[in-house]
Parts: sequence; structure tokens; C-alpha cells
Amino acid sequence: MDRPGGVLLDLDGTIYEADRVVPGAPEAVARLRRAGLAVAFCTNATRMPRRALGERLAALGIPAVPGEIVTAPAAAAAWLRAEGIRRVALYVAEATLEEFPDCTADAAAPGAVVLGDLAAGWTFDVLNRAFRQVLGGARLVALQRNRYWKTADGLSLDAGPFVAALEYAAGTTATVVGKPSAPFFSLAVAALGVPADRVVVVGDDVTTDALGARAAGLRAVLVRTGKYRVGDEATVTPAPDAVVDSVARLPALFGVE
Amino acid sequence: MDRPGGVLLDLDGTIYEADRVVPGAPEAVARLRRAGLAVAFCTNATRMPRRALGERLAALGIPAVPGEIVTAPAAAAAWLRAEGIRRVALYVAEATLEEFPDCTADAAAPGAVVLGDLAAGWTFDVLNRAFRQVLGGARLVALQRNRYWKTADGLSLDAGPFVAALEYAAGTTATVVGKPSAPFFSLAVAALGVPADRVVVVGDDVTTDALGARAAGLRAVLVRTGKYRVGDEATVTPAPDAVVDSVARLPALFGVE
Repeated sequence: MDRPGGVLLDLDGTIYEADRVVPGAPEAVARLRRAGLAVAFCTNATRMPRRALGERLAALGIPAVPGEIVTAPAAAAAWLRAEGIRRVALYVAEATLEEFPDCTADAAAPGAVVLGDLAAGWTFDVLNRAFRQVLGGARLVALQRNRYWKTADGLSLDAGPFVAALEYAAGTTATVVGKPSAPFFSLAVAALGVPADRVVVVGDDVTTDALGARAAGLRAVLVRTGKYRVGDEATVTPAPDAVVDSVARLPALFGVE
Repeated sequence: MDRPGGVLLDLDGTIYEADRVVPGAPEAVARLRRAGLAVAFCTNATRMPRRALGERLAALGIPAVPGEIVTAPAAAAAWLRAEGIRRVALYVAEATLEEFPDCTADAAAPGAVVLGDLAAGWTFDVLNRAFRQVLGGARLVALQRNRYWKTADGLSLDAGPFVAALEYAAGTTATVVGKPSAPFFSLAVAALGVPADRVVVVGDDVTTDALGARAAGLRAVLVRTGKYRVGDEATVTPAPDAVVDSVARLPALFGVE
């Protein structure tokens, strides 16, 4: 594979799995950086701000500054800024509120309703309030629309079903700002400071990471860690540009020593 | 219009509006019955059992026995019986549980998940339990899939958004057993005991009542009460067979004195 100018690394399932770093990940990232490649991290994580994710990466031996981390809440804040929307109703994890410093809470007449991950915070009254705000003219914005995720006691509803409920109720379609949306990858490419045609996205999700990257005009490498299942790469068109066992193989793939 | 053999009357918006009977409705129903037409009532009401609806009709001056009333919960019970499903998870208003005498609650491995109107009872944990039951193999059944309804303090989410949420999460499509589904109208026609081609459905909802009836092979009369808005009849194909000011006009429409 041609040596890229920059690499966008997914986090959960790619850099770490649950609380453990993927073996060889810190060394591989350090090697890419030493060889002059720009490195940034992109995640649909909706419960942690970039600051906390940076601390987590540092604790795993992968130093990263918040500006090198692109998250769905940060992408939402960038989208709101670009649309000139300041008065919002945020239905996001409390820890991520710090990603919206330019926004003012306005329950009466928000310009946008931003849906994140509230888990047990999704009650009828909360959903009904968001519904009425959308009927009142607010844009419907979703951090992501995953169906479910794996929790300690089994599969659990992710944000997607609640996005679907509000779309159905209000007869509208949400703007998704997380992966695999094009605006998300634009923001991540901007964080790298490298032209899009020299960027490679690396992740374990063949749809969200690999197919999303290809659709956004970037190259894609699928890793066989995290949620990867044998044969995943054959399920999407266009296919990923490469498949490797883990991020530890990236320096070799890119010809970096 | 040809004199029908039986008439299926919608309730809310057709026979009564909020707590008030539509003027002339009791006399019109009595006249149809005296002329030998079979009369039954069909409603998507999800909060009251047929017994309570019968009492309500009687209080408004329209005697009706439970066997002449077809509701979405009763249609769900009939559907479960036809499918041979007895072990179920019922997410329906408590007052309607009496409509499911053949069913046994089984949270661990239900054959069907039945979604009704829980309103504030829809919490994350309740939705997540239903989601896991569907993943475990339960059929997903919905009493209705209305988007919203008008409450004292504004528009509020109806059952539909929660149906949409679970469909999206589980990647499946719910079987809707209320109006305008064909099984619902079949059940209502059976309650009348009149051949389908001699049945007329009367209601205020141009889609759920009128279009639904036409799609089920029945004739349809739209009434200009309840949710009717000027021009509704022109928004569907095929159009209703007739439009009248209210149910009070039915005897004249059918040539019944």
C-alpha cells in the first residue's frame, strides 16, 4: 500500500478492546509518528469528551492531545457552528456537555435537537419534549444511529432506536454527524492537516469505518480486532483497501520502519 | 349508495368527540338497527377493554354488547390465537389485559411481544427488555402505529414511535393488528356476520378508516367530524365511496327511514 500522509485511527476495537490496549498499538502509533505521518483518532464514542479520551490514551501509552481526537459530540458542535445554530436542546451524556461551549440551552425554541446516548435517561417525557421541539421547528441531529451495543448483561439499545422513534414521530430524517457521515470524516481530515487523498482510515467496523471512509473518498484499512468477524471485508462494496491482523501491522503495511 | 348489510362504525371522532356524543348519533344507530342492518363498532383505542367501551356507549345512549365492539387489543388476542401463540410479553395498557385471557405472561421466552400504549410506562429498561425478547425470537406485534395524538398540553407521542424504535433496533418489521390492517377489518366483518361486499366502514380518518377499508375490500364513508379536515377525501386513492356531515346522515345515505 502507498505510504499515506496521515492515519485516522478508530479507538474502541482498534486501539483498545474494553480496558486493554491492543498488543503492539502504542509502538505502532509511535513508529508512524516518528516516520512523519500525521496521526489522529476518530470515534463514535458518545459518553466521553476528547479531554477524557486523551487521558485514557495516555494511560495506555499512546499520548494524544484533544486536537488529535475527533468524536461524535465534537462533530456535532462543529456542525452546529457551521450552520450558525447556537440555541440548542442537548440530549447527550452529561460528560460530553463540555464539547458544546458555544451553545446555549433553549428548551422553548431550540434551533436544533441533538440526540446522543442517554441510556436510562430516555424516558417518555424526555422523548416527548424532544418531539415537540422538532415539531416546533428544531433541526434533528444525531451523534450516531447504532442499533445496539454489547453491555455486561447482554445487548442493549444504543442511540439509534431513539433517533428512529423521533424521526417516525415527527416525520423527518435526522442529520447524523458521527461516523460514517461525510461531515465527520471531513472534520477528522481537517484535524490531520493532510489532503484527503493521502489519508487512510483504520478501524474494526467494516461499515462505519471502512465503507464510510471509502464513501468519503478516503482509503480504508480493516483490522481483525474488536468486532471484526471473518469475511467482513467481503460484505461491502467498495471493499477495504487492505485487511491486517491489528494496528500493530500498520508500520509494515505502510513501509515504515 | 346501495343499502349495505352491515355497518362498522369508528368510535372516537365518529360516534363521540372527547366526552360528547356526536349529535344525532344514538338516533341514527337505532334507526339502522331497526331497519335490520348489522351494526358493530371498531376502534384503535388501546386503553380500554371492550367491556368498558360498551359501558361508555350505553351511557351515551347507544347500547352495544362487547361482541359488537372490535378493538386493537381484541384483534391482537385474535391474531395470537390464530398463530397458536400463548406465551407472550404484553406491553399494553393495564386496563386491556382482560382482552388476553388465553395468554400466559412469559418474560424469558415469549412467542410474541405485543406493543400497545404505555405512555409514561415506556422507559429505557422496558424497551430494552422488549428488544431482547425480539432478539430472542419473539414475533413483534403492534396494536397500532400512530405517530402522535392530541393531549391536554399538546401533541404527544403515540405507540408508533416506540414500535419504530424496536423495529429499528431489532432489524425487523412489526405486524400491525389494529386499523388499517386487513386482519383487523376481517375480524370486524366477522363480528358483523355479513359478507364483506355488503359492509360499509364509517369513520373520520381518511387513511385509517376510509383508505384502510377500501384496501380491505370494503366500502367506506368518511364523516366530517372528529379529525376530518376539508379536502381529506381528495388525498387518498381510492377515494371514500361517500362523504357525509356526520353519522346522523347515515340513515338518509342508505335510504333507511
